Amino acid sequence: MRIRLDLAYDGTDFHGWAAQPGLRTVQGELSDALATVLRVPSVAVVCAGRTDAGVHARGQVVHADLDGLEPAAVEGLLRRLNGRLPADVRVRRVAAAPAGFDARFGALWRRYAYRIADTPAVVDPLTRGHVLAWPRSLDLDAMNAASAVLVGRHDFASFCKQREGATTIRTLLELSWARERSGLLVGTVRADAFCHSMVRSLVGCLIAVGEGRRPVAWAEDILRAEVRDPSVAVVHAHGLTLEEVAYPLDDELAARAEQTRARRVADE
Amino acid sequence: MRIRLDLAYDGTDFHGWAAQPGLRTVQGELSDALATVLRVPSVAVVCAGRTDAGVHARGQVVHADLDGLEPAAVEGLLRRLNGRLPADVRVRRVAAAPAGFDARFGALWRRYAYRIADTPAVVDPLTRGHVLAWPRSLDLDAMNAASAVLVGRHDFASFCKQREGATTIRTLLELSWARERSGLLVGTVRADAFCHSMVRSLVGCLIAVGEGRRPVAWAEDILRAEVRDPSVAVVHAHGLTLEEVAYPLDDELAARAEQTRARRVADE
Repeated sequence: MRIRLDLAYDGTDFHGWAAQPGLRTVQGELSDALATVLRVPSVAVVCAGRTDAGVHARGQVVHADLDGLEPAAVEGLLRRLNGRLPADVRVRRVAAAPAGFDARFGALWRRYAYRIADTPAVVDPLTRGHVLAWPRSLDLDAMNAASAVLVGRHDFASFCKQREGATTIRTLLELSWARERSGLLVGTVRADAFCHSMVRSLVGCLIAVGEGRRPVAWAEDILRAEVRDPSVAVVHAHGLTLEEVAYPLDDELAARAEQTRARRVADE
Repeated sequence: MRIRLDLAYDGTDFHGWAAQPGLRTVQGELSDALATVLRVPSVAVVCAGRTDAGVHARGQVVHADLDGLEPAAVEGLLRRLNGRLPADVRVRRVAAAPAGFDARFGALWRRYAYRIADTPAVVDPLTRGHVLAWPRSLDLDAMNAASAVLVGRHDFASFCKQREGATTIRTLLELSWARERSGLLVGTVRADAFCHSMVRSLVGCLIAVGEGRRPVAWAEDILRAEVRDPSVAVVHAHGLTLEEVAYPLDDELAARAEQTRARRVADE
């Protein structure tokens, strides 16, 4: 039986999602908690967005295949898991997954938010763990103008840590900035998938534009170069939060997962 | 020269506002930072709302009298203070105070928020330091019905830690609950002044009503008794944040401070 778990975590004290020997990771904690609660030796968990060290999540989606779990036991699992997990990871929902559901390959898109407090009046110590305090004020319009050029299907090699043989072509569905009523600057980044460090490199580039250190056209110059540029900073992880993962309707799940899996194999 | 400072702090690692020998307090940190920056032996700071241990603030207001500070130096003070203060206290604004300004006696009212996540789907690890996670869901309408009875000028002795010779009569201007879009339950508590532990006792009483452990009429019964009732729990400090302090227009500041000071003396 496959279950879907919706997770939120504070990434501060995690070495990212992916389990690594001897390091505290979200995958490790969740997998251990499931194994303890279900009294089995181990449980494999697959997530939609493999967040880096220090990156947070409010809308992470995970699946796990649990042999012999009774459907009636799914509801109790939420409370038992949260009783077992540390306070910086919370399970928000547990449900039997619909047929064909795959947290990773079935996803349509992932949405991240990057939060910046760019004036002293906006810096809030209560949110300092997930909002970047920036010492200079940023120009929203300049950042949006530079962002607009990056939206669409491009080779994002300039913004990615290259992996041997892997494509860096991605479809950026949304990249935009808004100022909340609180004064916080919030960037929304939505794509079918991201390559490694892509969101933080995009934000690093756009902050340089927002400060006026670089012109609006610089973002496009960097993109067109299609080669990683050391003048683009990979901005701090702690301002970044995985907010939402979207899936198709239940009857399209299996087809979507199959299609993504086939494309990934072709790419790699 | 008197200055006004607007402060935000994460109360988690503070033993409250008021300086106490050997303990980490907000008053102590701010006073030390001012003394260091201004190269004077000590600086007295007076706040609008003396928050208890663990209580946070986003809208704390403070005044300090700084001998010999040039008006031109006020602006630079913000950056210098924030450079000196620990990350859990931030100065959001510094300005020369208008004539007659007194952060404590000049205030018209203080507004606090109490935040509760009462279902697993709403619990957010990123805000766990300032939102109470409550294991049972709460009835918004019952809490609002009970709250409405408490609004107004009453003797709040039932909700206060009694101090010898001090009055417990207060005017509660607002006490209401709303559910945010995120699902968070937020209580707003606004009064001319509060006695010790009053907000947390009121919230403790209203949570019992919200859970259905007590009827709506219980809040009024407790109030009318005018004596502290051990069945009213003083709820956790970490859900409470001082959000705002209001002052009259500049030309009414001195009169307001004088009036409050006179009433306090008469009370005590």
